[in-house]
Amino acid sequence: MGLFTKDIKSMEDLYLHVLQDIYYAENQIKKALPDMIEKATNRDLSAAFKAHLGETESQIARLDQAFQLLGKEPKGTTCPAIDGIIKEANEVAGECDNKKVLDAALIAAAQAVEHYEITRYGTMIAWSEELGHDAIAKLLTTNLNEEKAADKKLTTIGEKKVNLRAAG
Amino acid sequence: MGLFTKDIKSMEDLYLHVLQDIYYAENQIKKALPDMIEKATNRDLSAAFKAHLGETESQIARLDQAFQLLGKEPKGTTCPAIDGIIKEANEVAGECDNKKVLDAALIAAAQAVEHYEITRYGTMIAWSEELGHDAIAKLLTTNLNEEKAADKKLTTIGEKKVNLRAAG
Repeated sequence: MGLFTKDIKSMEDLYLHVLQDIYYAENQIKKALPDMIEKATNRDLSAAFKAHLGETESQIARLDQAFQLLGKEPKGTTCPAIDGIIKEANEVAGECDNKKVLDAALIAAAQAVEHYEITRYGTMIAWSEELGHDAIAKLLTTNLNEEKAADKKLTTIGEKKVNLRAAG
Repeated sequence: MGLFTKDIKSMEDLYLHVLQDIYYAENQIKKALPDMIEKATNRDLSAAFKAHLGETESQIARLDQAFQLLGKEPKGTTCPAIDGIIKEANEVAGECDNKKVLDAALIAAAQAVEHYEITRYGTMIAWSEELGHDAIAKLLTTNLNEEKAADKKLTTIGEKKVNLRAAG
């Protein structure tokens, strides 16, 4: 969350910090996806990553709106969690020899990313409701639902196609 | 996942690596929880962290059994993802001035940890089924269900107690 300073004194401060954390995370994911699209060998997997890149761009636009509603400039704050998750994903992409096993590893890495976003959006929606930021809650709920759908799609691709081939 | 080498050639190799990744993660969580128990000011939150420390120890014992079933020595592999998530949690614990806001931040950090475990166990259970490791699938399903329950408990504590106080 990049909470390195002692100026988090109120829930509004914490709320803004976590919004900046998600903003950073989504932007890092946007940068990481093109590589994952390129590395994926399963056609459905590659298409799912492509679709999620488009979704990620829309999600960033919704976060821009959230900042605007708070009267703040959109800004990211370095988040060691998403950096670690993406670092793993990149390592898998670069180091796995068997292409079919690589697809399974890419799915696992992408699902770790989705779950990070799911937990952060879940937290932020709960806080939005507590703090009366209803319009922001609505924007973040759209993002959350997209992340959950993306996670489910990856599970389906993993179970039906990649794993069977990889195990064979 | 610590997939730094080119010796991941089969699904079984990948499976073992991710098992080692979870093993490392659970052990890091076991080390991080005592600090979180101490920092939490809400009594229910502190009790939830304590209960989860006990669960984490049982989960590690189940992972030991999983390694045994594979005929392998229990071993962790450094995982930048969980390291990043715990780094954030520690930073929050150390840097947040307002104790009530700190509780909300601790819940958010703990839920990010739970979600990381949820995604990894989900992946490993799917792979266990594909690879015919049914006994391991059963052990990991117990762990997964505990993580999901812990995540829900944190949501309830967050919504009903900490956030309302923190926002007030």
